[in-house]
Amino acid sequence: MQDKFILSMLVSNEAGVLTRVSGMFGRRGYNIDSLSVGETDNPALSRMTILSRGDDVIRDQIINQLKKLVDVKAVALMDKENTVSRELMLIKVNSELATQAQIHKVVEVFRAKVVDLNPTNVTIEITGEKSKLDAFVANLVPYGILELCRTGVTAIGRNSNILTEKESEEE
Amino acid sequence: MQDKFILSMLVSNEAGVLTRVSGMFGRRGYNIDSLSVGETDNPALSRMTILSRGDDVIRDQIINQLKKLVDVKAVALMDKENTVSRELMLIKVNSELATQAQIHKVVEVFRAKVVDLNPTNVTIEITGEKSKLDAFVANLVPYGILELCRTGVTAIGRNSNILTEKESEEE
Repeated sequence: MQDKFILSMLVSNEAGVLTRVSGMFGRRGYNIDSLSVGETDNPALSRMTILSRGDDVIRDQIINQLKKLVDVKAVALMDKENTVSRELMLIKVNSELATQAQIHKVVEVFRAKVVDLNPTNVTIEITGEKSKLDAFVANLVPYGILELCRTGVTAIGRNSNILTEKESEEE
Repeated sequence: MQDKFILSMLVSNEAGVLTRVSGMFGRRGYNIDSLSVGETDNPALSRMTILSRGDDVIRDQIINQLKKLVDVKAVALMDKENTVSRELMLIKVNSELATQAQIHKVVEVFRAKVVDLNPTNVTIEITGEKSKLDAFVANLVPYGILELCRTGVTAIGRNSNILTEKESEEE
């Protein structure tokens, strides 16, 4: 089974880390569907979230390989039930007088937000799980998508599941 | 001046691209403050957003080096006035009966959203420009930040500024 899974990591906040992590995936032919990386409250650490896919064997191989990298201070497999995952998208769509009301209806249904508007197009911001964003895009295809930017998925554990330097994977 | 700047790119959606792009930054000592990469409506292309910093000379060098990479189909320097930039953050903070109302007040002021809650902590989702997220974090420090995940900045041009394969940088 080519299941999708989310890995959350704490990595050293220094040049070259991204290259070493993505290089490990590339050399071994592992897939990266999305990657996002941002600061944490600790200036020495960044938090990286990778959406990948593969069967259980591949998933475990990836986790083991990541643990071998000295830059990787913690890795957790984020299980679906105990994780809040979110992605942000900015999308620009063709609009004209005849279609504007329809587009605004879609925006309303998805609780999205218009962030820029002019006579020929509209730019919308939306946040949610990946599946929600996919559905939103599908609803806008008929109007003509001019461009879109997605951040890739980020994820945090529910309750008191906290990723720390001491922790290793949780399954 | 060590100005921050945002580069938006269309890159081939294939293994190794992330390694080659981040490797170019690493080898030359250019800084990556944040990076996000996600799908576009074209399965062959991903859109990558890099927040970097440096003076005008370094900025131009980075753009020129990116253009030399065959995986990079378009690069644009996103100027502040004509760009909508956004980042998403999930943050988990200590909370107890005595501080819950205060935390909810901060959430309200920043138009953030509580996505998980239990007796000892609260998880909040917030979207906005990087500076807004930084301010939000600063307001929550007194309560004790347990963990946070940021997607890194993504950006889209205002009006009819559209990044396409034909376009190169805009200044």
